[in-house]
Amino acid sequence: MQKFTFYNPTRIYFGKNAIDNLATELGKFGNNILLAYGGGSIIKGGLYDIVKAICGRCGKTVYEVSGIMPNPRTEKVYEGIEICKKHDVDLILAVGGGSVIDCVKAMAAGAKTDKDFWQTFYRNKEKCEAATPIGVILTLPATGSEMNSGSVVTKWDENLKTDYTDDCLYPHFSILDPTYTYTLPANQIIYGAVDTLAHAFEQYFSAPDDDNPSDYLAEAVILNVISNVEKALACPTDYEARSNLMWDSTMALNRVIGCGKRQDWNSHMIEHALSGFYDIPHGAGLAIVFPNWMRYVRHLCLGRFVRFAERIWGVNPKGKTDDEIALEGIQAVQDYFRSIGAPTTLTEVGIPAERIEEIAAKVELTEGGYQPLTQKDVVEILKAAV
Amino acid sequence: MQKFTFYNPTRIYFGKNAIDNLATELGKFGNNILLAYGGGSIIKGGLYDIVKAICGRCGKTVYEVSGIMPNPRTEKVYEGIEICKKHDVDLILAVGGGSVIDCVKAMAAGAKTDKDFWQTFYRNKEKCEAATPIGVILTLPATGSEMNSGSVVTKWDENLKTDYTDDCLYPHFSILDPTYTYTLPANQIIYGAVDTLAHAFEQYFSAPDDDNPSDYLAEAVILNVISNVEKALACPTDYEARSNLMWDSTMALNRVIGCGKRQDWNSHMIEHALSGFYDIPHGAGLAIVFPNWMRYVRHLCLGRFVRFAERIWGVNPKGKTDDEIALEGIQAVQDYFRSIGAPTTLTEVGIPAERIEEIAAKVELTEGGYQPLTQKDVVEILKAAV
Repeated sequence: MQKFTFYNPTRIYFGKNAIDNLATELGKFGNNILLAYGGGSIIKGGLYDIVKAICGRCGKTVYEVSGIMPNPRTEKVYEGIEICKKHDVDLILAVGGGSVIDCVKAMAAGAKTDKDFWQTFYRNKEKCEAATPIGVILTLPATGSEMNSGSVVTKWDENLKTDYTDDCLYPHFSILDPTYTYTLPANQIIYGAVDTLAHAFEQYFSAPDDDNPSDYLAEAVILNVISNVEKALACPTDYEARSNLMWDSTMALNRVIGCGKRQDWNSHMIEHALSGFYDIPHGAGLAIVFPNWMRYVRHLCLGRFVRFAERIWGVNPKGKTDDEIALEGIQAVQDYFRSIGAPTTLTEVGIPAERIEEIAAKVELTEGGYQPLTQKDVVEILKAAV
Repeated sequence: MQKFTFYNPTRIYFGKNAIDNLATELGKFGNNILLAYGGGSIIKGGLYDIVKAICGRCGKTVYEVSGIMPNPRTEKVYEGIEICKKHDVDLILAVGGGSVIDCVKAMAAGAKTDKDFWQTFYRNKEKCEAATPIGVILTLPATGSEMNSGSVVTKWDENLKTDYTDDCLYPHFSILDPTYTYTLPANQIIYGAVDTLAHAFEQYFSAPDDDNPSDYLAEAVILNVISNVEKALACPTDYEARSNLMWDSTMALNRVIGCGKRQDWNSHMIEHALSGFYDIPHGAGLAIVFPNWMRYVRHLCLGRFVRFAERIWGVNPKGKTDDEIALEGIQAVQDYFRSIGAPTTLTEVGIPAERIEEIAAKVELTEGGYQPLTQKDVVEILKAAV
């Protein structure tokens, strides 16, 4: 197990009525709250009223920033930063999924500096010295942002979707009530599950391939997701299935399963370019990219793909070459994505083959993988995904 | 997945030369350090000199409390508390294994109150309002104390070994360098591994038995321990094996695998009574108690024991009743403990059958299990262990 640092101070309240802990948490912060949310589903579902009532009982002054979109954009971040500065906001309370939380992290970082948040943090990756505290009420299990320090924001006029990570950006607390997911549309459950699996894959398919606890833990998360998606889709009020998917999504990206792993993340980078151009759901893009990335890189780590095929998909190795076993496991991933209703080709989401070169040019490749990829590799991976 | 709260702010530095991070951490605290350690193995091994040198370079004043024994006792805690109060200690630096860390947690809690630490916290379980900050340099993987808020201390004149847990007691940082374990005697590796497995068992064998991520994660830790103990014993400088066991021991009790589980802990309570009387190594006591506890309670959760037998020990269920499968799995645990050199009977550690009733009377039973145990049950479990 290789060198690593682990730190994650987010306090999690999980389960039915976890919101009962909100008042205690609010008591730890000052008077001014910025309530941040998305398109209004929390108003329809009643959560907005509940949160406002609790804030009211705690004597808080609540400001609001709403309409945070999927693939949250810089404009919305600037809007939040302005409110934070104008009203001396003491806590930003994100109510929503990964887009709301990611957007709020950018606001939190930007609120405590006079510099431009996008250029300073997301582009130049400067250290964030201070941030407005963040609290989360999660409504959509997918990104893990509720228990990590990362954030992805899109600058739409440049088709740039960029990430930033800093210890300052861990939420102070996150409230995870699986019953809030009962009313989600099926495709959000599907994309959330794909995102969770993709996070596990990025960490699992990377050096070192030694015997290490993190890979066993990643397999545990992957297996638990697979055993729950269909149940969660069949019955939206299946608490067991919904709660499992919610905690799996957190565990997949709270850094536990990445300890001691270099981590790849190039499939995410490719997906960021896709949704930076086409604004497709992140989970949809990942379902398209991942199996094709796997086929493309499998020769760099065949043993790992064989282990994956056998342990996760129960592939019987008898009479097969390692490459045949690996390919059968990869095919199982793609078949699985298709079976739960995720797209697996660019054509399905309306991305034409002609734009592949242009998209590939925008991919900000990382170096954590078995072998660095080039833009040419990305073109090949995307061509296979048409 | 049932309701839970998760919080764990300890910062982990893992890997070769993780001590390089000590100076940065020391910089976060005041000038007065209490260096706490055990019987002097850190002096022989050279770690003492290294730590003192780093403290010196950071301009710290170092006080010392040494000779902390396995199953640490109240007397030693009072000694540390006195130093903390007299010298306004800003950070207690524990260099050692679980006994040193547990002892230091009791000092940290006691240093910030005029009340008696034993009566107030360990007996009456009052909330700890403040504690002296703790840092850890781990030399023995076993208890997980380096990344949790729990502590067990023994009042020897009453044969009472009692635990206490409070959020104040999480170490601020823990330095985990697997190479520090290269010089450990084999039996400490063995008992450490048993302790790690026992921690996973306490959480895994408890309600609810629903499908939940925690059980998958517990299995991951258990499997990784089993795949590494023999390698670690065969070659003390096998970094991969030693590093896996070190992180497994932390993961087994940093609360991750217990999320949403009621947790049993009665086998630990029985063991605490054994070592409260006989001062045997904690891991030795657990190896004796656990398989017998398993046989005794298996009918309360046969499905769980079947899953355990199949997934962990590869028991082939064909043509067997559930009880036969469960028993085969439990036998595998006991055989495994014996194979790595742990005792599996009371006789082996010199505890006579005649004292069972007296020991059982001291067991402080918990109620997290499938069904509460009585002192009579404990007598039966211990009788089976003769």
